[in-house]
Amino acid sequence: MLEELKRQVWEANELLPKYGLVTFTWGNVSGIDRQKGLFVIKPSGVPYETLKPEDMVVMDLDGNQVEGSLRPSSDTKTHLELYRAFPECGGIVHTHSTFAVGFAQAGMDIPCMGTTQCDYFYGNIPCVRNLTPEEIDEDYEKNTGAAIVRWFADHDINPKYVPGCLAKNHGPFVWGKDAFEAVHNAAVVEETAKMDFIAKQLNPQAGNAPACYIEKHFQRKHGPHAYYGQKG
Amino acid sequence: MLEELKRQVWEANELLPKYGLVTFTWGNVSGIDRQKGLFVIKPSGVPYETLKPEDMVVMDLDGNQVEGSLRPSSDTKTHLELYRAFPECGGIVHTHSTFAVGFAQAGMDIPCMGTTQCDYFYGNIPCVRNLTPEEIDEDYEKNTGAAIVRWFADHDINPKYVPGCLAKNHGPFVWGKDAFEAVHNAAVVEETAKMDFIAKQLNPQAGNAPACYIEKHFQRKHGPHAYYGQKG
Amino acid sequence: MLEELKRQVWEANELLPKYGLVTFTWGNVSGIDRQKGLFVIKPSGVPYETLKPEDMVVMDLDGNQVEGSLRPSSDTKTHLELYRAFPECGGIVHTHSTFAVGFAQAGMDIPCMGTTQCDYFYGNIPCVRNLTPEEIDEDYEKNTGAAIVRWFADHDINPKYVPGCLAKNHGPFVWGKDAFEAVHNAAVVEETAKMDFIAKQLNPQAGNAPACYIEKHFQRKHGPHAYYGQKG
Amino acid sequence: MLEELKRQVWEANELLPKYGLVTFTWGNVSGIDRQKGLFVIKPSGVPYETLKPEDMVVMDLDGNQVEGSLRPSSDTKTHLELYRAFPECGGIVHTHSTFAVGFAQAGMDIPCMGTTQCDYFYGNIPCVRNLTPEEIDEDYEKNTGAAIVRWFADHDINPKYVPGCLAKNHGPFVWGKDAFEAVHNAAVVEETAKMDFIAKQLNPQAGNAPACYIEKHFQRKHGPHAYYGQKG
Repeated sequence: MLEELKRQVWEANELLPKYGLVTFTWGNVSGIDRQKGLFVIKPSGVPYETLKPEDMVVMDLDGNQVEGSLRPSSDTKTHLELYRAFPECGGIVHTHSTFAVGFAQAGMDIPCMGTTQCDYFYGNIPCVRNLTPEEIDEDYEKNTGAAIVRWFADHDINPKYVPGCLAKNHGPFVWGKDAFEAVHNAAVVEETAKMDFIAKQLNPQAGNAPACYIEKHFQRKHGPHAYYGQKG
Repeated sequence: MLEELKRQVWEANELLPKYGLVTFTWGNVSGIDRQKGLFVIKPSGVPYETLKPEDMVVMDLDGNQVEGSLRPSSDTKTHLELYRAFPECGGIVHTHSTFAVGFAQAGMDIPCMGTTQCDYFYGNIPCVRNLTPEEIDEDYEKNTGAAIVRWFADHDINPKYVPGCLAKNHGPFVWGKDAFEAVHNAAVVEETAKMDFIAKQLNPQAGNAPACYIEKHFQRKHGPHAYYGQKG
Repeated sequence: MLEELKRQVWEANELLPKYGLVTFTWGNVSGIDRQKGLFVIKPSGVPYETLKPEDMVVMDLDGNQVEGSLRPSSDTKTHLELYRAFPECGGIVHTHSTFAVGFAQAGMDIPCMGTTQCDYFYGNIPCVRNLTPEEIDEDYEKNTGAAIVRWFADHDINPKYVPGCLAKNHGPFVWGKDAFEAVHNAAVVEETAKMDFIAKQLNPQAGNAPACYIEKHFQRKHGPHAYYGQKG
Repeated sequence: MLEELKRQVWEANELLPKYGLVTFTWGNVSGIDRQKGLFVIKPSGVPYETLKPEDMVVMDLDGNQVEGSLRPSSDTKTHLELYRAFPECGGIVHTHSTFAVGFAQAGMDIPCMGTTQCDYFYGNIPCVRNLTPEEIDEDYEKNTGAAIVRWFADHDINPKYVPGCLAKNHGPFVWGKDAFEAVHNAAVVEETAKMDFIAKQLNPQAGNAPACYIEKHFQRKHGPHAYYGQKG
């Protein structure tokens, strides 16, 4: 069942250590088949060196495990909330990548200080608030997703144009049109976090790139008249 | 004698360079057989590239070398003090990993700023005080261990839940249920030290993660109702 | 057509990931044949792992694509402006290398704090101003090049002796006598940015190396009586 | 002539890229045969990938090239001054390693903040003053060595116990009993520079390790009753 998607999600998971985005098992990738209403996710706590495509777990959008003998990632309910609320999201990744976690622990957005970030994110990568003790007690992972969804709704920002965020005191959740784009965007989050760290240390007064830069770079890559890359 | 444990401790030592936790010979791992009352430790100053399982040194808990033609690690008496005082400790590692040493030289705890740390440590990784000149003269390595043991006793903290610390102006001593878990925890110490460094530079006012996060993450991985990873 | 130059520019492009100067496709190298008035540049958005010499695009100095089925780099017009204005420039590279981007986002020159930089740059690596919204609307990439050219003219600095700069909120553009020297200089820009970051964090009052050091080191490598390296 | 020493110095040079201490050709190692009064040094500007043992240049202590068709390192006269003044010095290395250069550019000693450094250096790694324009004009490389020698004389410090220093706005010069120990010590300089950078950023008030730590660690490794490592 969903062999092609399982293989893709497995491959996307294996990119995390390749890109230097995970230590041990501190990350997970999922991908969804919107037509079938099923998503595939990494099993919990399995090392990347021994992970196999057939280990992937299949979940439905009610949170039922429909295939796989292993337990799904402990963050599965967070993925579920995001898939439910963001209809254009086809893949999700969670990591503890170092600089992104640094911003999450500092309680700060990753500011959009340069063209590297505006090639992918139409503005800041937001740091979403902590959960309350009650939200944690009720359902920690579900409410982590709910807080993210609420942030995008409250700020009226389309998650397609800002495909990721930080959970405060935790780390990044990042998405894309499929699992590969989600991982690609997770690497962008880490790299821009590092660049912004350097810039802020050099000049604490340095702010975001001018709005016209954000507009120009995002549009030349993602707008209707995009001219970055090859056609088709 | 203790062939299996020697092989395990040798393997755990070899993980130090693999995980980027040592330069040259600046680290050592030991593991204990509690039933026999013997522990196995790296010989002093032997490079990891040429180290062999049969080079491992066997010690008893009175500090006598019971097997091995090479001198044991110069930090052997520190390991000994920890094995004597911490009955659930099955493996110990000492490194000079870069960011952890940075905190030790700054004289600061590694604060528990996020979920990465609370997945393994139930709070801060403490920085234990310097020895006095008299303690150094009397027995430097033994008293390094004694100061660590005293810190946990004075603060009434179970070393099972905070499996490591920093010796001020020196570096980390970290432990676990066996040599492999000790090395795993030593990698966590280094990575969270780096994350906390970044967070503190970005926002000097940033503090620890909320207590409910520390509780939640530690318990979901280590508590009686843990649900991280696979069963058994 | 221009097979040798295409091979050289391809090789120079492949050095970017080898030297750790690019993430994904965030960089491009070109090289020029001054006699024919043609330059060769990387195609846009093609990954370095699959890039082949025959993928290289040939452009003339009026900005016409004269060979190649792929679109040229989106930064092609910036390269074009620099080739037109700097007659001794034989190769150009643009990257988003991490520390150089940090300085660009901080809006700061990379100061000439030590001999590492003065072996290659006769002074600071300047941070060139942002474009106005009008300049972006008119022609972003062309005007990025024009602003760089203007900076060197306004400051009466020979681009041969300061072979690179930062575009503010963007990243480095670096050149040399051919594509290989341009990439070599781009690695110098990144490394000196890192060294200067460290020095400025340690001592915010630390300034440039004394003028006599800049003079000495630049001349012993590039002056008429240079004695660094081998003759011929 | 001196085949064994040439091979050793070549090997020691090749360790520089292996240990991450050089970019391009920014470093050089030499080693001396005290009985013959000859030293062997890397040729200038030759890349480490193509360097061969037979490329090594042989110099006498009057500064004459006695063998080798290639030019010796541009820093040869600095090595010469150190060999003349420091009779126990058997090998010398100069690098532009990143964190050590950061301290040199900041004009700061690398402070002895922890046991990592006191295992090798009996105190701070000093930052030696800039040369005057007159000293540069007269003989830059010779006077760089002379300023280093003068610093140790003025401070009455035995260069055997502090086997290295920083040349301000330039980088580290490090030595040892032979070329290998010099390179080993150069790696210590870089690593302790990084550790001290982290510590100083975390806590600007953090100072040196207590004197008794410096005494203890240096003596347990280098004193008459040393017990680190294996006998003989």
